[in-house]
Amino acid sequence: MDFQSCFPIWDKLTAAQRDRILGGLISRHVRKGTVIHSSSADCTGLLLVQSGRLRAYILSEEGREITIYRLFDRDMCLFSASCMMRSIQFDVSIETETDTDLWVIPAEIYRGIMEESALAANYTNELMAARFSEVMWLMEQVMWKSMDKRVAAFLLEEASVEGTGRLRITHEAIANHLGTHREVVTRMLRYFQNEGMVKLARGSVELADREKLEALGNA
Amino acid sequence: MDFQSCFPIWDKLTAAQRDRILGGLISRHVRKGTVIHSSSADCTGLLLVQSGRLRAYILSEEGREITIYRLFDRDMCLFSASCMMRSIQFDVSIETETDTDLWVIPAEIYRGIMEESALAANYTNELMAARFSEVMWLMEQVMWKSMDKRVAAFLLEEASVEGTGRLRITHEAIANHLGTHREVVTRMLRYFQNEGMVKLARGSVELADREKLEALGNA
Repeated sequence: MDFQSCFPIWDKLTAAQRDRILGGLISRHVRKGTVIHSSSADCTGLLLVQSGRLRAYILSEEGREITIYRLFDRDMCLFSASCMMRSIQFDVSIETETDTDLWVIPAEIYRGIMEESALAANYTNELMAARFSEVMWLMEQVMWKSMDKRVAAFLLEEASVEGTGRLRITHEAIANHLGTHREVVTRMLRYFQNEGMVKLARGSVELADREKLEALGNA
Repeated sequence: MDFQSCFPIWDKLTAAQRDRILGGLISRHVRKGTVIHSSSADCTGLLLVQSGRLRAYILSEEGREITIYRLFDRDMCLFSASCMMRSIQFDVSIETETDTDLWVIPAEIYRGIMEESALAANYTNELMAARFSEVMWLMEQVMWKSMDKRVAAFLLEEASVEGTGRLRITHEAIANHLGTHREVVTRMLRYFQNEGMVKLARGSVELADREKLEALGNA
């Protein structure tokens, strides 16, 4: 897969715009677990995932985390270039969840194209609206959904993303996804185990009864 | 104040674009407490507040509410025209908090201008980024800040918005702003009263010690 076929508006750009993007484009291979962006101060640029997985999250002053969305193959990450828009007044951290190949479009270059092209600006609008929708979904989860349902839904999502019912994940990592404390997750998982929904082992959680988890997670 | 001087990009639009906006523009006077937009299904259009105050909030299935942002004079409301962008996949409700004069730009007209004008599209980007920032701020409050601090911060915000230290507001209304239950707010306000921070009366909350409230709300 090359950049041209992954970048959704490529065909609609002018030749000059394409040259500018290709001229500045950086191709990176990033190892799993690397924080590639951590504050609005470092304006990394727009990221386009070729293959792999990114996690965008926010951090509290005390170091607590909550995942706000994840990015997969061909997804574009806008907030790593938040310096492009002065109205973006928040910090998002981004790390790789697997080994990841990605392209970086320097923020300056993308901003220039956005300023002259209604098409690129409207595409950016749609990108931001999509992320906004994910954050609003999360807000609803956090506000109205109890933690047992959120843990069940997260385990099912994770099993789908990883393609396995035996998740190699710590309670701490689950807590950081959901914005809660490890102890809360541990208590919940033990309750799930008693109910026959999961089997716990050191460093892993196995989904033992998906139907029951789905009934809870979708409730 | 006329529309032209309130609409930030007016001077930069073409004569044809201005004609289209003025041709479709609707001026409305809306009484306090009116729900003017309640789902993405009714695409009300872009709202520009001439004078007054709007509250944007989300609703749970059980009817619980949380305020996600407020709009004041000259503020523009984008999500009342969410049909303009297919990636906006969430419902925001909007109601007037005071008698409000506003203009409505029909979504069709604005969308047409956004599609042809990089300037209008980038302006819309900035609008969305500004609201996104408010929602991310709220997410941080909800995730990491305890309810006593949030109630204190809300009372101070409300006093500033209303221009009075004697707020005519019910515990229910405060709960709906903060996304919690009335009982939680009542318990908190009684605690504040015991600490000398507020004085409670039927249907009103008086700020008795702003310094102490600020110390708590900003903590």
